[in-house]
Amino acid sequence: MSAPSASAWWAQFRKNLFGKPIATSRAAHERLSPRVGLAVFASDSLSSVAYATEAILQVLGLVSAAALGIQPWISLAIVALIAIIATSYRQTIRAYPQGGGSYIVASDNLGPRVGLVAGCALLIDYILTVAVSVAAGVAAIASAFPSLHSQLVPIAILIIGLLAFANLRGIKESGALFSVPTYGFVLVMYVMLALGIARSVQAGPQVQQVLAEPGTLGSYASAPFWFVVLRAFAAGCTALTGIEAVSDGTQSFQKPEQKNASKVLLWMAIILSTLFLGMGYMVMHLPTVKLFSVKNPEFSTVSSQVAAYAFGSANHPGFYTVQAFTALILLLAANTAFADFPRVCSFLARDGYLPRYMARQGDRLVFHNGIIVLALAAIVLVYAFHGELDQLLPLYAVGVFTAFSLSQSGMVRYWLRHQGAGWKASLGINAFGAFLCICVLAIILVTKFRDGAWLVTFMLPGLYFGLTAIKNRYQSVARQQAVTEAPEATVVSGNHIALLLVPRVNRGILNALNYARNLKGEVQAVHVTLNDRALPELERQWQKYGQGVPLVVLASPYRSLIEPLVEYVDRLREADPNCIITVISPEAHSRRWYQRWLSENVGFQLKNALQKRRNVVVASPRYFLD
Amino acid sequence: MSAPSASAWWAQFRKNLFGKPIATSRAAHERLSPRVGLAVFASDSLSSVAYATEAILQVLGLVSAAALGIQPWISLAIVALIAIIATSYRQTIRAYPQGGGSYIVASDNLGPRVGLVAGCALLIDYILTVAVSVAAGVAAIASAFPSLHSQLVPIAILIIGLLAFANLRGIKESGALFSVPTYGFVLVMYVMLALGIARSVQAGPQVQQVLAEPGTLGSYASAPFWFVVLRAFAAGCTALTGIEAVSDGTQSFQKPEQKNASKVLLWMAIILSTLFLGMGYMVMHLPTVKLFSVKNPEFSTVSSQVAAYAFGSANHPGFYTVQAFTALILLLAANTAFADFPRVCSFLARDGYLPRYMARQGDRLVFHNGIIVLALAAIVLVYAFHGELDQLLPLYAVGVFTAFSLSQSGMVRYWLRHQGAGWKASLGINAFGAFLCICVLAIILVTKFRDGAWLVTFMLPGLYFGLTAIKNRYQSVARQQAVTEAPEATVVSGNHIALLLVPRVNRGILNALNYARNLKGEVQAVHVTLNDRALPELERQWQKYGQGVPLVVLASPYRSLIEPLVEYVDRLREADPNCIITVISPEAHSRRWYQRWLSENVGFQLKNALQKRRNVVVASPRYFLD
Repeated sequence: MSAPSASAWWAQFRKNLFGKPIATSRAAHERLSPRVGLAVFASDSLSSVAYATEAILQVLGLVSAAALGIQPWISLAIVALIAIIATSYRQTIRAYPQGGGSYIVASDNLGPRVGLVAGCALLIDYILTVAVSVAAGVAAIASAFPSLHSQLVPIAILIIGLLAFANLRGIKESGALFSVPTYGFVLVMYVMLALGIARSVQAGPQVQQVLAEPGTLGSYASAPFWFVVLRAFAAGCTALTGIEAVSDGTQSFQKPEQKNASKVLLWMAIILSTLFLGMGYMVMHLPTVKLFSVKNPEFSTVSSQVAAYAFGSANHPGFYTVQAFTALILLLAANTAFADFPRVCSFLARDGYLPRYMARQGDRLVFHNGIIVLALAAIVLVYAFHGELDQLLPLYAVGVFTAFSLSQSGMVRYWLRHQGAGWKASLGINAFGAFLCICVLAIILVTKFRDGAWLVTFMLPGLYFGLTAIKNRYQSVARQQAVTEAPEATVVSGNHIALLLVPRVNRGILNALNYARNLKGEVQAVHVTLNDRALPELERQWQKYGQGVPLVVLASPYRSLIEPLVEYVDRLREADPNCIITVISPEAHSRRWYQRWLSENVGFQLKNALQKRRNVVVASPRYFLD
Repeated sequence: MSAPSASAWWAQFRKNLFGKPIATSRAAHERLSPRVGLAVFASDSLSSVAYATEAILQVLGLVSAAALGIQPWISLAIVALIAIIATSYRQTIRAYPQGGGSYIVASDNLGPRVGLVAGCALLIDYILTVAVSVAAGVAAIASAFPSLHSQLVPIAILIIGLLAFANLRGIKESGALFSVPTYGFVLVMYVMLALGIARSVQAGPQVQQVLAEPGTLGSYASAPFWFVVLRAFAAGCTALTGIEAVSDGTQSFQKPEQKNASKVLLWMAIILSTLFLGMGYMVMHLPTVKLFSVKNPEFSTVSSQVAAYAFGSANHPGFYTVQAFTALILLLAANTAFADFPRVCSFLARDGYLPRYMARQGDRLVFHNGIIVLALAAIVLVYAFHGELDQLLPLYAVGVFTAFSLSQSGMVRYWLRHQGAGWKASLGINAFGAFLCICVLAIILVTKFRDGAWLVTFMLPGLYFGLTAIKNRYQSVARQQAVTEAPEATVVSGNHIALLLVPRVNRGILNALNYARNLKGEVQAVHVTLNDRALPELERQWQKYGQGVPLVVLASPYRSLIEPLVEYVDRLREADPNCIITVISPEAHSRRWYQRWLSENVGFQLKNALQKRRNVVVASPRYFLD
């Protein structure tokens, strides 16, 4: 209830709620074996298997049921793209053993402006990683428990909130946290695909039935063929999201870092490709494919349809296992964004594009800011798009391929400048990768512009100018405050006056008096009379214990403490405009929080009241009660 | 978004929202003429005319329609009581020209324990003044606009919120603010009573029809007669609420204060009595009396029924005028509690029964606490009792007559001790007043115990023990911190070390360096490396501008600012356990609030991190940007 101590109370509350140590930032500094590294870095990438194939089918389904037959070719093209981009990122690992995220690579090689574009794209990416992964995870859960359909958005928001809470508290990141969902997912997916392929081979060829939302099937029949193919390709490119993660984190690996990271990237690309191709094969051979909207009570994800087919029914324990691990790896993917987003913020802050204190990731309060911003932004997106993946994925793809294009282009520039051993081959690979990424980005922008991609073309420049404005402000401050003259001239030399607030005479106050006398210059004890009857006794006590320091008694006709003090400070400053004043407000500190309610943070109020006055400082020595 | 500056932001927000000056506390110090004084002090008392008669009828109606005939006798008894209590309080004015509220009179004469009981009763009273007055005001409004019935509780809560907001902002208290509602109410009530009496005389005697909630009329028929009469009397005693206000505020009057206050009290008692008697006469002569519950769509207050009868219909402009002024004076009565509650809190705080800072009413933050507590408590009561007056009034009456009894008893003791001129007459009057108040209190407790009075018999001791616990805590702290030894022995003498945080070198930091060098002892500049690349340039600049102060560079492997600093402070303290450390964290201060978002309150975080360490003080000199 006490406003004066509200901030202290809030700090205490945060501490109780979110605990003390930030385990996250520390655990990240333990070096990873390739096995654990794969688990740590692959969740974002591999989890896209859960939705990428469906995204292709959703586009083709708009043309006709027969058009679904194009999907395997598109999937093959995407696997080729995976191979090229993965190879391309292995060059980044080679060049940036300390970790080459898009922001760093683009800034280093293409200048700070392009780097900032990459940084903005990354921030948008991480927000969408959370939104997309959680939405897909909830869809996987709803495929297993159809009664949850009507509550998808609240559930997704709740999950984002829980992830944020867990990260605010600090997750103890162990190998198991990553290994169980990632390897579990890979394992159950392979089992599912093996069973499914066996069953479909046994069943022999059959005509596939396609069920879609009424009015959608065939609504695109008149669109040009190339446009539909490119659009489906663009939709499938969401399979590549997260592929850059390993090259960001090269330095997290055990020695030899680059070799281990490269190996992990290779394995990740192989697993991703085989799962993706397997999924593409399976959806071709399902007797029935349902492409319903997530709001439809008959909705289930395509990958859950594959699982139901492979295990024989949607009641088989295997089916539930697949759905569980799908949801788990998706939540893990969302969770990685909670670690990465504050990190990119800290890079941007270090370079002056975000409030400078954001660079201090190790400090709890600062670390919290990034997590809260990320969670809120993701919640807004999930809410605005009703948790529908087909609407979120185009946004995601634009951000991801913007970052890819800039990072790969940066690598091209890097090899041209550095020309180490085998630089020509690396240059060729990165140039081809950059070219493909730019093509994909163009395809996404053209074919998906009206489906949400336009939004990113506003968010990105908006973010860019916002961060530039912050940078400009810092630069203008730096200019204002620059030290240009001789040092002696910049320093105002004045008398120092220490004002010690003496509400009563006790040991705590005498301890503060001791502190005050340790400052140079004049010390004055100041008492504001709120209770006239107590004054004579106070004066008598000060006479005895005040060590000769003069006591100034200020009347307070309106029973204010702050006003008479501010007026007195102003009088002192008028008398000597160059004087430096330290107001010393001793503070009692109780051990228990409910006892703290009885003491007050006068220092805080004084600081606010005196904030516009130069050379006036408030200091609050504490004394301890028990 | 930025947690580090949240408290500063909140302070700014409060300032924007609630404005700067507390006009209330100042205006109260302008001396009042008797005319304005009556307006200021009478609203609480006179507004009870709006509900006291109805409260009597509600009790009698439980017996039978015929029982309503007892009401005039009860009203006469209450007017006699008003006369005696008013005379009794005129003795208080005589004895306490500086203002004799129940808390002061009881504390002075009956000791601090009894005084505390009176203080608790007053706090409860003010909460109930707000709850009852607002509920009655909303009932008056609903009588004019029947469609508002279903929304009474939300409207009441909204009004309490608005009153709190207006008081938080600080109301400019002018004579007009009080005079218009008070004199307007008195005038329209006299007009209404004159018209009503004329109309009833013209109509001649007739049989009155009584309509009540189904099942209530006659439900008390078997109760003993004396019990019903006492119960109705107890209900009517709510007419006396607020009668003590003038004697509380004697010192607010122009000279001669006591004479003016006495005059005002006399006039107030006369107006109150005549209005109350007139109302009692009128309800006897209404052709139909409706005693419905406030939830009944047919509900209207009895005083509105009188107005409708007097002006001929419930559509007459006169009717609306009466309802408007009734609501206005009730809101004004509620508003006076917002001024009085923080004042009683400040008395209690001065004596150590509430957090000591509550005594500083002149400080905005402190003043706010009282208002917020009062508003919240009143809202809880209105909500819990569904805004029903018959349920709130017994609580109110208990609190009021507890305070009356203690105050009057205190006056008896006063005269016995002081024995000035004419003390025996005063003693007699006060003794009789005290006796009557105690009788009334007993009657209320006995007859209304099950109707809510029991709640106060829990609240009062609860509050008493809560405040006593606070006092005990302060006394234990005072004992702990008492200065008993020779002053020299209590003071720890140690070396002073000033640690100046140097995140970068600029004029603001050099200004802070100047401040640091003004402190006695050693100065160290401390830099925590968050960006290795910037370190050499910083060291070079410090070399040039650092005035020879050594620069300590602390590594921060986890990119924390706070942790390495705390560790360094601990190392210094280990090396010299008696040392006194001032950590100087320079703070940039921007003119615009949105620019402030870019700088951070490191001092606040450091203070929290270092809070348990003795002899460590954080000071934040500011430098100014524009």
